[in-house]
Amino acid sequence: MSQDNATFDRITIIGAGLIGSSLARAIRRGGGVGTLILADADAAVLAEAKALELADIYCADVCEAVKNADLILLAVPVGAMASVAEKMASSLKEGAIVSDVGSVKAGVVKAVAPMLPKGVHLIPGHPVSGTEQSGPSAGFASLFDDRWVILTPPEGTDDTALGALSAFWTKLGSRVEIMTPEHHDLVLAITSHVPHLIAYNIVGTASDLETVTRSEVIKYSAGGFRDFTRIAASDPTMWRDVFLNNKEAVLEMLGRFSEDLTALQRAIRWGDGEALFELFSRTRDIRRKIIDAGQDDEAADFGRPHDD
Amino acid sequence: MSQDNATFDRITIIGAGLIGSSLARAIRRGGGVGTLILADADAAVLAEAKALELADIYCADVCEAVKNADLILLAVPVGAMASVAEKMASSLKEGAIVSDVGSVKAGVVKAVAPMLPKGVHLIPGHPVSGTEQSGPSAGFASLFDDRWVILTPPEGTDDTALGALSAFWTKLGSRVEIMTPEHHDLVLAITSHVPHLIAYNIVGTASDLETVTRSEVIKYSAGGFRDFTRIAASDPTMWRDVFLNNKEAVLEMLGRFSEDLTALQRAIRWGDGEALFELFSRTRDIRRKIIDAGQDDEAADFGRPHDD
Repeated sequence: MSQDNATFDRITIIGAGLIGSSLARAIRRGGGVGTLILADADAAVLAEAKALELADIYCADVCEAVKNADLILLAVPVGAMASVAEKMASSLKEGAIVSDVGSVKAGVVKAVAPMLPKGVHLIPGHPVSGTEQSGPSAGFASLFDDRWVILTPPEGTDDTALGALSAFWTKLGSRVEIMTPEHHDLVLAITSHVPHLIAYNIVGTASDLETVTRSEVIKYSAGGFRDFTRIAASDPTMWRDVFLNNKEAVLEMLGRFSEDLTALQRAIRWGDGEALFELFSRTRDIRRKIIDAGQDDEAADFGRPHDD
Repeated sequence: MSQDNATFDRITIIGAGLIGSSLARAIRRGGGVGTLILADADAAVLAEAKALELADIYCADVCEAVKNADLILLAVPVGAMASVAEKMASSLKEGAIVSDVGSVKAGVVKAVAPMLPKGVHLIPGHPVSGTEQSGPSAGFASLFDDRWVILTPPEGTDDTALGALSAFWTKLGSRVEIMTPEHHDLVLAITSHVPHLIAYNIVGTASDLETVTRSEVIKYSAGGFRDFTRIAASDPTMWRDVFLNNKEAVLEMLGRFSEDLTALQRAIRWGDGEALFELFSRTRDIRRKIIDAGQDDEAADFGRPHDD
């Protein structure tokens, strides 16, 4: 690690998809890194990353990729973390920091921690940002700008290592928060995992109807449905792994969602307009606060193009 | 009605909100209308429309507003249609066309038809477009460009009147489809009403948790939740009326949604990764088709701003 807390001499990113390739771009944009290594097990993905000139060195082999690296960032689906960690473990440098970008944290700690040798700092992380697209070409440097990155250091984590990783993300343009893996998984279950699940679900429901054709669903999607198709177009492997690895928190939040939906269903059945109006009025306020907090744009309709 | 089927000498829009004011702008942009009258029962809304110079004449009184009009467009919440129709009925000109922009059609036909005198053509309509914002200033001329407008003419509707209304919408830039009110209500239940309901619902669920704070929900909303807050910021009165007036179709579609969600919940509980992966893979395809059909933009993340 160099003197400047926010920079590392040698950084390895494993996984050159949307997040990994955006990380490479953001690191390059920020400057200050000695050598940037990008690894991917998929030869086509690695070739695409190379063609985009995203890093200094490209590796198909993770052991080769992590040698002498000061910071290793795992940007692979949550279900692949353990096997990557196992493979690379013996090649890690003493004092290296291993982090990740997975959407589930308790599961990652449990899967990855036992694989790593002593003297290596494991500090799991999760940048709360992304798009519905996948692959090296979908990435962009500003993906993490003003977005939160949650770090979940295990008890006893070295303060200097934690400080360096925090400074690294801050330099990329992100805001850093620290919490336990368990709390992270609960928060993300409601702000990300359940929203994805119900988006996938309604798109599935709409495709399977007998009384309304798929062509009608597509034609009239501007009534609201099309919004849900965006996140329902996200990477299937990544999201399968999220649900398999954050089962308890997702089921808990899903239970709350379904309970509330049943109450709304009952209000509709009994014509309780007051209950509907009350809910529909207070949800406006959260949108306002998200815009005020800089987490979304205030342009109408997500800023979809329009003329006056 | 003038010779040109797409133009009317005198058009009255009742309701100067997002849709009514966008209609006024789109009509003005298209040209060819003799006189455009805008009416609103709310003095502040009418004053705002006047300040924006959206029409030729501004009326607080609907009877005054509809006198001698060839086309009357009701752009008020579905629950207010009947009382507006009742008020204006005796002032309508023989041969006038009365249409609307309500999101529910069978209920509108049932409520409005009995109010109108013989010799007036009732042809309910619904432009499938909008944003989460409200009021005269939120409107814009291109709101209906390339969006579908569904007309639901009652049996025995005059062909010339139907042709004139279709040509009117086509001239505004829309695509016109004709179906029964009942089928419309079923299609919109899945493409618009249930999506709004589950968006309102998840925002409500997220606000009421004890284990995750509202501040955390706002901070980490970029994980997917923020997408839902957009439509959950839509007009509460309008949406209360939609659910009260399309009860049966909404309950039917909601039943399907909940059934499918329960199956997904079970797949998560039992770790059935294959079932999750299968659904998550086929939902991508619908997004692609919506983009190909020109009903959404292909830019990642709804085109939210980003740099390379």
